[in-house]
Amino acid sequence: MTQEPFSRRLRAGMVGGGAGAFIGKVHRIASELDGQALLVAGALSSDPDRARASAEAWFLERSYGSYQEMAEAEAARPDGIDFAIVATPNHMHFPVVKAFLEKNIPVVCDKPMTFNLAEAQQLVKLVEERKLVFALTHNYTGYPTVRQARHMVQSGALGEIRKVLVEYIQDWLMTPQEQAGNKQAEWRTDPARSGLGGSIGDIGTHGENLLEYITGLKIGSLCADLTAFVPGRALDDDANILLRMENGAKGILTCSQIAAGEENRLSIRIYGTKAGLEWRQMEPNNLILKTPGQPIQILRTNQPYMSEESNVMARIPAGHPEGFLEAFANIYKLAIADIRRAKAGQPLQGGYPTVYDGLRGLQFITKVVESSQKGSVWVDFAS
Amino acid sequence: MTQEPFSRRLRAGMVGGGAGAFIGKVHRIASELDGQALLVAGALSSDPDRARASAEAWFLERSYGSYQEMAEAEAARPDGIDFAIVATPNHMHFPVVKAFLEKNIPVVCDKPMTFNLAEAQQLVKLVEERKLVFALTHNYTGYPTVRQARHMVQSGALGEIRKVLVEYIQDWLMTPQEQAGNKQAEWRTDPARSGLGGSIGDIGTHGENLLEYITGLKIGSLCADLTAFVPGRALDDDANILLRMENGAKGILTCSQIAAGEENRLSIRIYGTKAGLEWRQMEPNNLILKTPGQPIQILRTNQPYMSEESNVMARIPAGHPEGFLEAFANIYKLAIADIRRAKAGQPLQGGYPTVYDGLRGLQFITKVVESSQKGSVWVDFAS
Amino acid sequence: MTQEPFSRRLRAGMVGGGAGAFIGKVHRIASELDGQALLVAGALSSDPDRARASAEAWFLERSYGSYQEMAEAEAARPDGIDFAIVATPNHMHFPVVKAFLEKNIPVVCDKPMTFNLAEAQQLVKLVEERKLVFALTHNYTGYPTVRQARHMVQSGALGEIRKVLVEYIQDWLMTPQEQAGNKQAEWRTDPARSGLGGSIGDIGTHGENLLEYITGLKIGSLCADLTAFVPGRALDDDANILLRMENGAKGILTCSQIAAGEENRLSIRIYGTKAGLEWRQMEPNNLILKTPGQPIQILRTNQPYMSEESNVMARIPAGHPEGFLEAFANIYKLAIADIRRAKAGQPLQGGYPTVYDGLRGLQFITKVVESSQKGSVWVDFAS
Amino acid sequence: MTQEPFSRRLRAGMVGGGAGAFIGKVHRIASELDGQALLVAGALSSDPDRARASAEAWFLERSYGSYQEMAEAEAARPDGIDFAIVATPNHMHFPVVKAFLEKNIPVVCDKPMTFNLAEAQQLVKLVEERKLVFALTHNYTGYPTVRQARHMVQSGALGEIRKVLVEYIQDWLMTPQEQAGNKQAEWRTDPARSGLGGSIGDIGTHGENLLEYITGLKIGSLCADLTAFVPGRALDDDANILLRMENGAKGILTCSQIAAGEENRLSIRIYGTKAGLEWRQMEPNNLILKTPGQPIQILRTNQPYMSEESNVMARIPAGHPEGFLEAFANIYKLAIADIRRAKAGQPLQGGYPTVYDGLRGLQFITKVVESSQKGSVWVDFAS
Repeated sequence: MTQEPFSRRLRAGMVGGGAGAFIGKVHRIASELDGQALLVAGALSSDPDRARASAEAWFLERSYGSYQEMAEAEAARPDGIDFAIVATPNHMHFPVVKAFLEKNIPVVCDKPMTFNLAEAQQLVKLVEERKLVFALTHNYTGYPTVRQARHMVQSGALGEIRKVLVEYIQDWLMTPQEQAGNKQAEWRTDPARSGLGGSIGDIGTHGENLLEYITGLKIGSLCADLTAFVPGRALDDDANILLRMENGAKGILTCSQIAAGEENRLSIRIYGTKAGLEWRQMEPNNLILKTPGQPIQILRTNQPYMSEESNVMARIPAGHPEGFLEAFANIYKLAIADIRRAKAGQPLQGGYPTVYDGLRGLQFITKVVESSQKGSVWVDFAS
Repeated sequence: MTQEPFSRRLRAGMVGGGAGAFIGKVHRIASELDGQALLVAGALSSDPDRARASAEAWFLERSYGSYQEMAEAEAARPDGIDFAIVATPNHMHFPVVKAFLEKNIPVVCDKPMTFNLAEAQQLVKLVEERKLVFALTHNYTGYPTVRQARHMVQSGALGEIRKVLVEYIQDWLMTPQEQAGNKQAEWRTDPARSGLGGSIGDIGTHGENLLEYITGLKIGSLCADLTAFVPGRALDDDANILLRMENGAKGILTCSQIAAGEENRLSIRIYGTKAGLEWRQMEPNNLILKTPGQPIQILRTNQPYMSEESNVMARIPAGHPEGFLEAFANIYKLAIADIRRAKAGQPLQGGYPTVYDGLRGLQFITKVVESSQKGSVWVDFAS
Repeated sequence: MTQEPFSRRLRAGMVGGGAGAFIGKVHRIASELDGQALLVAGALSSDPDRARASAEAWFLERSYGSYQEMAEAEAARPDGIDFAIVATPNHMHFPVVKAFLEKNIPVVCDKPMTFNLAEAQQLVKLVEERKLVFALTHNYTGYPTVRQARHMVQSGALGEIRKVLVEYIQDWLMTPQEQAGNKQAEWRTDPARSGLGGSIGDIGTHGENLLEYITGLKIGSLCADLTAFVPGRALDDDANILLRMENGAKGILTCSQIAAGEENRLSIRIYGTKAGLEWRQMEPNNLILKTPGQPIQILRTNQPYMSEESNVMARIPAGHPEGFLEAFANIYKLAIADIRRAKAGQPLQGGYPTVYDGLRGLQFITKVVESSQKGSVWVDFAS
Repeated sequence: MTQEPFSRRLRAGMVGGGAGAFIGKVHRIASELDGQALLVAGALSSDPDRARASAEAWFLERSYGSYQEMAEAEAARPDGIDFAIVATPNHMHFPVVKAFLEKNIPVVCDKPMTFNLAEAQQLVKLVEERKLVFALTHNYTGYPTVRQARHMVQSGALGEIRKVLVEYIQDWLMTPQEQAGNKQAEWRTDPARSGLGGSIGDIGTHGENLLEYITGLKIGSLCADLTAFVPGRALDDDANILLRMENGAKGILTCSQIAAGEENRLSIRIYGTKAGLEWRQMEPNNLILKTPGQPIQILRTNQPYMSEESNVMARIPAGHPEGFLEAFANIYKLAIADIRRAKAGQPLQGGYPTVYDGLRGLQFITKVVESSQKGSVWVDFAS
């Protein structure tokens, strides 16, 4: 019986992410891309009409009016979903995730993991108790080149890390979109739905996660200067942060949603005692290695010189660009593999962001906001 | 009844493309990516064991030992496939396509369309007679930026075209891979399976198609210098071709599979009396416009200034890179939409490469080889 | 008599910059590049042998053993130098500059202007009293594209500035070069010769100057985290600084000389309410403008759409790359033009960095070091 | 006596290149840039007023009404010029060069070397007889990265060369500038002053020279398609050429002056059995090496891993961009060094383009035009 999931695509159900939500479509495509899962059920919107229309547009077999109903019903069906996808606004993450986990249904959840730190801590406990697969879509860690970057740092190619520069800047909130009927902007700039952080929660946490994922270093303390440039906005739309890593490295993390003309400029640079490494999300098939005294090297997705852990994340030959959806799908690929393993009683292998990454993200948001509110002073991350 | 296909994913079946074939996976992902189709059946290999194993790995519901069997059986089922995908080596394209078309099953076929020009001409007739959807995966025309390029040329932004430079260069055949057990290399360098052209058929036709697609111009005559650099190779692995377009423009098309260090470098440049345009497949979210006396412009996928016909080909916000698979999926998206229309008795809208593009490709291969064999002399394309 | 300088190349004399000093050669080439001046005299080294050898290698007519001797002698000659070039280590700038100014000889001086803030304040007074041309080689402002950037910001193309990101990173001091016989490294890491700042003085001031030059904004306060990563080093080799501009803009300035693999990566990005602008020193003929809702624009050196103040800084047609030496020469071109004007009794026109820029630089170094020493706290720049 | 030139800057005199001529300024700056020569005399224009005004603007000591007068007078002076610079339109190259060589004055001459092949052959004889330094300013070979490219090809890093792609495209003649008062355009499109070739002579020869310089290979035969796109133009403004190298390599050379939006896009790519190499004039401090199975390498000007013959051509540290003028100056640096050696009775060391490169260029023009005029047929280069 435990082998059963291996001979078919898994069945997935999504909460949130209905028509108009950019990220819902992303989760649908990413979860199905490798032919390992099929979206069959959904509670795609809190608006029943929209939920139904979205479900029809996606040819879902089962559409629910609420996540509670969905969790209940799917858990009861013999052909119920094998995992749930949570793509709601932040304030709904925890209750929704909780509802499915309590029905022993594994979850893939969007980030930041929860509305606040307290919920994050509860969720850690819940996941630990239930021993279920829980994956968080810090999707940028799904790029093969990011995997390679981590591999190289960890294998010592850069020496000891001294300096890190992380940025994630966009421009889509440079005007008051939340007052212009943009649903995305509305909830993301609303403290009641987004949490303590604006840009720092939405994209800053991606930067933090990427930094700690690749380097294996922890932020030790930080000094943050948050700003809401757009008049009337309650949450930050820009952040400049000094970082001190636990190992003594120094650095900067900046994020912004008012950086005019920037689309989705996420990049990271890491400088060690031996070499420097650079990765830019908008040219994701390149990884740039600069070793003093040697030519600059551009490492490319799916080339034989890349590490095994990088190349298993690629699907097509080098020179055939893979992008955002493929990287996102890699998180799903890894999570689904573990869901299969769990069903088969095999040990999990991980590789995707977990509840601990999510906790770390909420700690980050909390500390950044604390620093800024106290006058942009240094705050110890761990305290 | 005619509305039926609108309320479910279409069912697809693939011939060829089993384990080890790069392009099979591409067709599977691309056909399913938008949630409009599901691969349910296949005759994935002429080797029965491989066919079965591949079908299991992909969780196919029905695996066949031959394409004939598959065409027969699927046509007879009430829940048979809605379209067939042909991903075999070139020499099998025509018989397989024919088998499905004759069962009134629409086809999406890989390129070059057929083994030779005669088959291509027969296929044109067959498609015209059957009035079925037939799409050819000249997938590079699926990029949103390529759609934009076509839009701009056709709307006159470049003025009258004077010069075109097309290249498609790779290095994967720079050594005798066909003697080293590389299945892909074996059939692609084998005149009995590939046809008259080596590199010129495999990738040169992509260049030709892209050129004619974007510019709307036709090649009038050409002078080609084909070479097989690798000793013992029967088909060209490199081509340099002078072009004269029917409108008086001049140009160059070069393709190569022995260009050391190049992955999949396809690019096109078009120079008119008003401006020049450049597109490079390996940075596919950029389209570069150079207008004398004005700053260089980089047009980006899914920005509001792009044409409607470009933006409908994009899925996610600008700055979230879309790549090869997404472009490939666009061909499927357009073809599937027409397959749905056909079932619903609605007029087709096209937008994907057709049997006429396929014919054009075979003419191109034939003329290029003729020119080169006669001593690299000028050959009239139309004659 | 006042017209006399107009009919010949000006005569220049250099202090410091002899054999082995990278920057001496730069000053020689830059000062002569436009055929407006000729280096005829020098006190090129404090080591007499090296001074003589350097002077011979450069075919100087007159070589002096000390700058005092040179100032004395040149002032007394009817064909004495028209201006002096000061290319010594920082601690000698002020005495040397003073010696020439007091002989009424205009000066072009390297940066940072003086050893400390007090000297800078004295120099301001001296220049104001003497009413002589004094130019400071913040050479990066000499790039035509930087002039264009300033023009665009000032003409309102970016709207109100909100965010600025400045970086200047290198790797040449990532190992203890100062202990390995590298003369450059020795004095630059020596507080007795370099002043309070290491990297922050050597390159950080370039960043500060570029920022204030292009934007016309002033730094209001800052929070700096300086580090000396190389063991035993007395001065900073890395700095991360949060900036608050007087107008309310926020930003970051980072500089480093331990950023492994980086050559001379100076860049600036400026985001306003209308558009964003980016300039990178290592691709200096490009200026990137990103306006939301419009294609990215790359503005190129010496194109007709560039402003007059940018194009007068270019020498050769667009597409013929101009680089570091040409930009440096532009500072000389402007300064020499003013020296000619001064001789002719005409009003000066400026355009080059002045004693006030130099003062600003020393204030910057002082405040950055103060912030860092106090525990990386916020320091008011103006106080 | 023979040592005399070593202790001073050489004296140079220019013919042509006066006000308005882009290339005259380039020669002036380039010849003086390294402090090895000073322009003191000139016959800068065939128009006496312009000649005088130009000479004054450049502070020349001696201005002549004609090149004959200049050759005569300078040869007779004890402090006469050490070498002549020829920057006239093509039809005047040979008579001017001849006049100076016959007075035993070395010459640096612009390209193409002569008006036609017959003159080129005579000049070869003359230089061989006189044993004087003669340098031709195929300036692009002066880039340090081009020197490195040659070094790498010759040291076998690329293996045996199979494919070469050369292009040099611009847009400045895409409209009939010659009818709009553009002096440059007038003579360059005039067969009586330019010779047989338009774009092929002006820039195509740079491509041919670069190709043969870097690869050490000779063009064996070619098939050229020349076009004059602008109505009324007597000479080609665009060329597409198939190349067969003597060693069996194949390739393409394209040049154009009607490629809308292109500034000065000269590039070369070379593919061998081991690796591929790419160089682009507009990013001249990069040299790109692509070795199958290894990361892409970007080699940078003046890095320690570059060959000695490359680094002696650089002046300032890596990351401080050097450009067109510096590369041009390198040709002068090498030629002047040989002029000094010749005066000192030392053996010449060369390194700059010679009369044989010039002859090769005229052969190239002649063969290209012959091919095109015969209907774009293959022409043997050597015959």
